[in-house]
Amino acid sequence: MTSSATNNGPTMTVYDFPVGPYPTRVRIAVAEKKLQMKIRFELVDLYKGEHKKPEFIEQRNYSGTLPVLELADGTLIAECTAITQYLDTLDGSPSLTGTAPLEQGIIHMMNKRAEIELLDAISVYFHHGTPGLGPLVELYQNPEWGFRQRDKALRGMHYFDKVLQRQPFIAGDKFSMADITVIGGLVFAAIVNLDIPPECRALLSWYERMRQRESVATQPAFSS
Amino acid sequence: MTSSATNNGPTMTVYDFPVGPYPTRVRIAVAEKKLQMKIRFELVDLYKGEHKKPEFIEQRNYSGTLPVLELADGTLIAECTAITQYLDTLDGSPSLTGTAPLEQGIIHMMNKRAEIELLDAISVYFHHGTPGLGPLVELYQNPEWGFRQRDKALRGMHYFDKVLQRQPFIAGDKFSMADITVIGGLVFAAIVNLDIPPECRALLSWYERMRQRESVATQPAFSS
Ligand SMILES: N[C@@H](CCC(=O)N[C@@H](CS)C(=O)NCC(=O)O)C(=O)O
Ligand SMILES: N[C@@H](CCC(=O)N[C@@H](CS)C(=O)NCC(=O)O)C(=O)O
Repeated sequence: MTSSATNNGPTMTVYDFPVGPYPTRVRIAVAEKKLQMKIRFELVDLYKGEHKKPEFIEQRNYSGTLPVLELADGTLIAECTAITQYLDTLDGSPSLTGTAPLEQGIIHMMNKRAEIELLDAISVYFHHGTPGLGPLVELYQNPEWGFRQRDKALRGMHYFDKVLQRQPFIAGDKFSMADITVIGGLVFAAIVNLDIPPECRALLSWYERMRQRESVATQPAFSS
Repeated sequence: MTSSATNNGPTMTVYDFPVGPYPTRVRIAVAEKKLQMKIRFELVDLYKGEHKKPEFIEQRNYSGTLPVLELADGTLIAECTAITQYLDTLDGSPSLTGTAPLEQGIIHMMNKRAEIELLDAISVYFHHGTPGLGPLVELYQNPEWGFRQRDKALRGMHYFDKVLQRQPFIAGDKFSMADITVIGGLVFAAIVNLDIPPECRALLSWYERMRQRESVATQPAFSS
């Protein structure tokens, strides 16, 4: 797979869709950890349903989603949280997932909450309440469920706004994986035209700060 | 909250529903880490909807679910994965969430996959395709979505069966948080009368082994 890797070249592959909200999470983590030179990004075309083909499901990720990280020896790691955990601890100095037990616990809680209450909810809305990836890929849609999830995501924005009224980052005093996941949620919100409510001022100003971080500003998701 | 704690008594509280599949995950983790004496379990009655009351949502867990761990200083950690991560790293020798980066990555991947493809899917089926917690708690149901999730969980059982055909535990050679999450899924499957298909022999025999572990055998979920 990555047999073309040289000593200084990439040793890992990320199966990627560059503007996708979930791949963007891993792309930001890669940039935060300064691992860009070690990673080759390989496009999997979601709009062609390449991620639902049997080869992809069987050989890369049973869940049929991106991103997936492949190591030099062919080992595969799917799921943004798991990939981030791996990349973050590789160098022995985790900066995104915490070091002390309490810090780790809070980051994992807020990361998961950002998925459940924001990012995953918007993803369900995209696939069920909008045309999503188009009729050839979206073989089953449940619009009512999709709309419920959109409303849940809107409530989630208000929740994270409240969190950010009392602390500078989603999991406390430091930038973490949980911030990245909320960024992923807001990237997806823009794709489905779900505006951040103007009264969510703490969330809006946090997001402006986030977009100024180099790891975030340089992502394809922000280049349009 | 836990001001009655003495030096040797409990210093943490778990908001709990003893036979619930998710609380069972944390209960197993607590037993694996031999932390029973440090933790007080406080019942929150799901069938009375206590977890959806504003006090619970505002003061304990925005997502309105159990379990939640409360530390001596009042800090709250929700989400089974986050609670497990915290408890597992407390003593400086993680046994459920891995130590090397790759091990951590694989455990987090399989744990998340066990949620998405099995446990969470059955939970949605319970709340949407069955009477769930009853009409006073289940204010909105989407049966069609519930049934799709039941079918997804059945496919998930076949997937985990395949995993267990080639390795003794869900994430590889060692018992981990990912095994606990699949156990949670199968606890929930029993509640909704979703049988493990008899052809899933590796999954069935793994589950039999799991139920013999002391941390698992002693759970209220298995006492009926
Ligand atoms: N739980 C997964 C979700 C990944 C996900 O949904 N990725 C999107 C790409 S932005 C995807 O592959 N969607 C395609 C589909 O669901 O059909 C993770 O955290 O990595
Ligand atoms: N993502 C949560 C899910 C927890 C969960 O769904 N817990 C169940 C108890 S078994 C619950 O509170 N259900 C009540 C409801 O959803 O109304 C976690 O991993 O802790």
